[in-house]
Amino acid sequence: MSSLFVLKIGGELLQSPEKCDQVLQYFVAHQGPKILVHGGGRDASSLSEKMGMQPHLIDGRRVTDAAQLDVVTMVYAGKVNTQLVARLNALGQKALGINGSDLGIITCDKRPATPIDYGFVGDIKAVNGSAITELLELGITPVFSAITSDGQGQLLNTNADTVATAVATALTLDHTVKLALLMGIPGILRDLEDSESLIKELDHASYEELKASGALSGGILPKLHNGFQAINNGVSEVIIANEETLINHQNTLLCR
Amino acid sequence: MSSLFVLKIGGELLQSPEKCDQVLQYFVAHQGPKILVHGGGRDASSLSEKMGMQPHLIDGRRVTDAAQLDVVTMVYAGKVNTQLVARLNALGQKALGINGSDLGIITCDKRPATPIDYGFVGDIKAVNGSAITELLELGITPVFSAITSDGQGQLLNTNADTVATAVATALTLDHTVKLALLMGIPGILRDLEDSESLIKELDHASYEELKASGALSGGILPKLHNGFQAINNGVSEVIIANEETLINHQNTLLCR
Repeated sequence: MSSLFVLKIGGELLQSPEKCDQVLQYFVAHQGPKILVHGGGRDASSLSEKMGMQPHLIDGRRVTDAAQLDVVTMVYAGKVNTQLVARLNALGQKALGINGSDLGIITCDKRPATPIDYGFVGDIKAVNGSAITELLELGITPVFSAITSDGQGQLLNTNADTVATAVATALTLDHTVKLALLMGIPGILRDLEDSESLIKELDHASYEELKASGALSGGILPKLHNGFQAINNGVSEVIIANEETLINHQNTLLCR
Repeated sequence: MSSLFVLKIGGELLQSPEKCDQVLQYFVAHQGPKILVHGGGRDASSLSEKMGMQPHLIDGRRVTDAAQLDVVTMVYAGKVNTQLVARLNALGQKALGINGSDLGIITCDKRPATPIDYGFVGDIKAVNGSAITELLELGITPVFSAITSDGQGQLLNTNADTVATAVATALTLDHTVKLALLMGIPGILRDLEDSESLIKELDHASYEELKASGALSGGILPKLHNGFQAINNGVSEVIIANEETLINHQNTLLCR
């Protein structure tokens, strides 16, 4: 089986052109087939405010009414995706911007309106791995924004970590997959106050212990949940890192 | 040689969801490989105004400073392209959103700042026809927005008629190409006041005569210039139509 590298970068990194470029260069230098997945929430909030609309987030998740759906579609699938693709092609990568509605690659269900109505938010139902594999076989590097659709023409806003995890998992059938989820933190810390306490390898039992001890909280929990789900579903390696620990191989590696 | 249909739709059609959908259904029903190219200028002007910026047009062409480049990238490559792709996939078409920076498919030069500085506007230098052909051979229907790049990572705003013409022309090497340029008018009229005076076939000599007589003016001239350039460069058929005359085959056909 050929190896595949799936890298997810988030909104924080996109705010820093210099750091972002370091990561893109690292990504380009990585040999073999690869996929980039990106967020862009900060840019979306900024556009929303310029248009006179206050973004509404619940636990860090965007409530996506029709106007906010336009905003995230324009920012994620338009501005951010196109800029990343243009930069990657300039670096010699044969990059192609993708979102879930392209080739029907990701189909979602609109999230039920109870208990919380998040609006046009999608939960992933199916990933068409063979359509992605066809592109990879042409030497193409897909660059995914986290816009998806319900297969009936309705666009949906989807969490980018979840897209990266689902895409990585769908490709384990014919690839050995390494997934790196970049965040604002260097990795998982045993003690949040001590940046030296980075855990090199975190297995599921230790994760549950850390969670119970209160050392893990907030936005990191759904990310780790995604990461362990990927490990359980056949992804070989899941890396939790920021741009620096990724490039220097000093990140946290999740294991069974 | 296999036949290929390239259809360009403009901003006016995109304002009318019902008419747009009729055209998409006509497009899907058309057998064989095909490509859609779209504009979106009206949506871009509307977003620009919502963001408190007055769009600046000279002879119908947008002056594209950095802020307006973000606007057109978000609207063309983001909102409009993604919505069209999602709708086409819902109609059973294996559609893929593309812009010129994807796979380095269209490389442009930034237009010189004299005599008029249009800002980040691109004039097409090269179209990578074989990259498009690879996608067509997978049964993929590319959907192009008119965002391109200079190959060095700088995005550029490009005229959508020109993109359609250049893409159609680049594919004449291995396809018999039919190009339809949709406009707000039913076709070329001998007498602008008389909608019954539609010309079924217009050759280059008659075009020059009509131009000299003043029966053609304004925005139609660069479109016809593009159309005749396509004919001269190997495109087999060029159709000038609106959605109604296209669907009813009552359009104007350009010929040598």
